[in-house]
Amino acid sequence: MSFAALQKKIDAKKNPTVMGIDPKLEYIPAHIADMAMQKFGKTKKAAGEALFEFGKGLIDACHDLLPAVKFQMAYYEMYGICGLEALHKTVEYAKSKELYVILDAKRGDIGETAKAYSAAYLGETDIFGESQKMLYADCLTVNPYLGIDGVRPFIDDCEKFGKSVFVLVKTSNASSGDFQDIIVEGAPLYERVAKKILEWGKSENVGAVVGATYPKQLAGLRKIMPDTFFLVPGFGAQGGSAADVKPAFDQNGGGAIVNSSRAIMCAWTKRGDGENFGNWARQEVEHMRDAIYG
Amino acid sequence: MSFAALQKKIDAKKNPTVMGIDPKLEYIPAHIADMAMQKFGKTKKAAGEALFEFGKGLIDACHDLLPAVKFQMAYYEMYGICGLEALHKTVEYAKSKELYVILDAKRGDIGETAKAYSAAYLGETDIFGESQKMLYADCLTVNPYLGIDGVRPFIDDCEKFGKSVFVLVKTSNASSGDFQDIIVEGAPLYERVAKKILEWGKSENVGAVVGATYPKQLAGLRKIMPDTFFLVPGFGAQGGSAADVKPAFDQNGGGAIVNSSRAIMCAWTKRGDGENFGNWARQEVEHMRDAIYG
Repeated sequence: MSFAALQKKIDAKKNPTVMGIDPKLEYIPAHIADMAMQKFGKTKKAAGEALFEFGKGLIDACHDLLPAVKFQMAYYEMYGICGLEALHKTVEYAKSKELYVILDAKRGDIGETAKAYSAAYLGETDIFGESQKMLYADCLTVNPYLGIDGVRPFIDDCEKFGKSVFVLVKTSNASSGDFQDIIVEGAPLYERVAKKILEWGKSENVGAVVGATYPKQLAGLRKIMPDTFFLVPGFGAQGGSAADVKPAFDQNGGGAIVNSSRAIMCAWTKRGDGENFGNWARQEVEHMRDAIYG
Repeated sequence: MSFAALQKKIDAKKNPTVMGIDPKLEYIPAHIADMAMQKFGKTKKAAGEALFEFGKGLIDACHDLLPAVKFQMAYYEMYGICGLEALHKTVEYAKSKELYVILDAKRGDIGETAKAYSAAYLGETDIFGESQKMLYADCLTVNPYLGIDGVRPFIDDCEKFGKSVFVLVKTSNASSGDFQDIIVEGAPLYERVAKKILEWGKSENVGAVVGATYPKQLAGLRKIMPDTFFLVPGFGAQGGSAADVKPAFDQNGGGAIVNSSRAIMCAWTKRGDGENFGNWARQEVEHMRDAIYG
């Protein structure tokens, strides 16, 4: 799905919020974990079942408010094969609710290998002569450190299959400056990355990741990339506020989605009310939407 | 496993060659693919079976010559859950042959998420109160673009569980220079990354990826990082030669492993002799060892 299609969903829902699903067992309410353990014992299989039920519950509670969900692959990989089976099921469930599905995998490798990653998540894999879809997302996050031949295969599949990628530019974490802020000919490296992205791909399907925790840099990047779609992580638990993400939007008030993971997923923990985790997540999504668009 | 343990294996086998297992169905001899299809049809499950049998065959043919194997995760991810099941089985098989197992996954993310990736591949995951191993490798490749808080969780697990990581410094691909070669205060960015790695971790378990395709840069990095273990990809199919990798070794002739994937895996294709793919792979490993240590 291209960014134009994503923008339509944002406009229809009047909400640029992405729900980040980064599940750990410790975030999952007891009734879900108990049910999974009753079925499968204290096993990896039960962990996978709990991950799926939690993600499904969050989607059920919030999908009508949301244009998109973002799955953080690390949390599913952490639970091995059972975790990845849960991811596949949850992605399919999200797609059945017509959500734009972002896989936050931050993949990047040399060209031949990037082709394989792209086949896994955006394109198709040849299985004994027949092209098959694997984990078929709308969008993938990509790491640019290896340069264009590590990014090109993803862009090619975006064009071929109508998908999109977000390339890391300025990440939301405290130490993102270690390399990203290094000054190169008077400007930080992340601006160089931004300019390369403009050369590499079209704004229809090549976006940029820019953290909510760096509002000044976000404003600067919006000037450099006026037409590029931004994925803005770092809202909520990481410290980014509605004021911080304002500069992410383009002159029409579009062109960006803002992700919150823990603040939504774990909204129930503040109330100690796991039974109603979906309602608390929904309330948090509404607050976030109203704060950003208010 | 620390780099000291890896060096012992290299010394015992008198061979610094790593066999890279980056399997695609098109690299797999017909008799293996046919057997898998007879069992499971033209399915993903058959693809996984073929991937495992091919990897097992390569290991059976070459393990006594080798200190280590490197699995490129992209190629397994490309075959979905069945591919990842094949990876798990092949990693276990490699460990049963006492090979040092490197997962080439090039993971990197913000701190909390990097913890999850590290739990998946180097550490342990809490499953309902019990710490369990998932895909338990000896070593993982890591992308540094997010800075130290994206790398620290891996280093912590290396220290806790006796594992190791290779951080990308100068990759073997043609466009690695897009960002890695940018001049910062008179020196390329990859040297800045190299110096950061020296600050971040101990040479016992924090190594560097430096491509065989850039011998001059390899020599420069060996001077900057005299005690750091190098993983040198790009030998063989990518163009790196035995002369090119000479500068990777330290003053004692150790401290580096050289990876070749396609030249070993696909050695049979030049002879059109898939039945004996293991023998041709073995011959290639012997040639590579003799060329590098000759």
